[in-house]
Amino acid sequence: MKISVLGTGMVGRALAARLHELGHDVAIGTRDVAATLTRITQDPERTREWREATADIPLLSFRDAGLHAEVILNATAGAHSLAAFDAIGDDALAGKVVLDLAIPLDLSRGLPPELTIVGDDSLGERIQRAHPQTRVVKSLHTMYYEVMIDPGRLSGSHVVFVGGEDASAKAVVTELLQDLGWPADSVIDLGGIISARATEMYSRLFFALYAQLETFDFNIQVVRAAVQDS
Amino acid sequence: MKISVLGTGMVGRALAARLHELGHDVAIGTRDVAATLTRITQDPERTREWREATADIPLLSFRDAGLHAEVILNATAGAHSLAAFDAIGDDALAGKVVLDLAIPLDLSRGLPPELTIVGDDSLGERIQRAHPQTRVVKSLHTMYYEVMIDPGRLSGSHVVFVGGEDASAKAVVTELLQDLGWPADSVIDLGGIISARATEMYSRLFFALYAQLETFDFNIQVVRAAVQDS
Repeated sequence: MKISVLGTGMVGRALAARLHELGHDVAIGTRDVAATLTRITQDPERTREWREATADIPLLSFRDAGLHAEVILNATAGAHSLAAFDAIGDDALAGKVVLDLAIPLDLSRGLPPELTIVGDDSLGERIQRAHPQTRVVKSLHTMYYEVMIDPGRLSGSHVVFVGGEDASAKAVVTELLQDLGWPADSVIDLGGIISARATEMYSRLFFALYAQLETFDFNIQVVRAAVQDS
Repeated sequence: MKISVLGTGMVGRALAARLHELGHDVAIGTRDVAATLTRITQDPERTREWREATADIPLLSFRDAGLHAEVILNATAGAHSLAAFDAIGDDALAGKVVLDLAIPLDLSRGLPPELTIVGDDSLGERIQRAHPQTRVVKSLHTMYYEVMIDPGRLSGSHVVFVGGEDASAKAVVTELLQDLGWPADSVIDLGGIISARATEMYSRLFFALYAQLETFDFNIQVVRAAVQDS
């Protein structure tokens, strides 16, 4: 699958590297390719990380990454996500599947972050509203990036949510999740993109749990009653 | 333990009945005792429910329920919670433990409800701020009331959160949780009352899961990595 990952942070790099390793045709998108390359090469640690994980993956502008992809993964910081999609442009976005895993976090006051979009709206909905010809699926944003790409690292069953308006786009995302190691029965479809409110707001509990557990290396499972009606 | 449950809805009645059954000295508090009794006796179904579960439990005004209690459980609708505590009065509240399980839901547009307090504040914090001499512990609000009083009904381990400023109040609440059947290792202390933001916002995911699962009879478990550092 032709996949572009928007964002050069830890999450974006880890997802791009894993999807490349799985045989997908992956590109990474960034706002300013030259500036990103300069930032990487000025820091020996960053250079090493970049070479190890993502050396064979083309680094493109958001626009070119959008043109490259059938599926676009949004791993930008929530504050920059809408600008990234604007930079791609509606002609390049039309009809494409967007797996949006960004969260609109305000990290200016440290951890736990509060949300900049909260209550009766969400980042997932805003991206979908701003670009109605894309098919946005909110997923993978409720856990640590190492769990996203290796769900088996946890010691029991746990869940990943999908939410979006388009059933075929959710099927594409579910296939990608299964590629990443998510069992079919771990994927919970929460309905439309409005469910992004629920899952983005969950991030506040995610960070509260981090503070208590002192690790990001966890996720949640949904436990049901022993006897089910259905 | 002398316990008053504020609120005569399903949640309040179920908690009061179970705590009474466990041998605690329980009262139920309501805004207007005469009006509540009239409402119950006018509806044969309500009369039957009330007699079955709570016939031996005194129904008191909020004020008298507050005076009765060592521990006050807030099971009022979130929109009425602050008024209920105001009705009790600070002299009756001083030093007492408040187990706050209310959520500030706006149910006027049906399910899923949105939150009326969200983001950088929470109902738990507002109650604590309005009555600084009480010791508020936010707990039990992340699940269905039948799960609150019978955690063993679910087919696996799952968690209950506590958050509050006072360690001894959290110990009292944890003891009550264990009375209700919560194993010690299912109780996760999320720190101060600020964590009520996280757990109240989780309610949006709770209702999204309800819409998907078509049952309230579930809860979440926190699943950790197989190998832990600590």
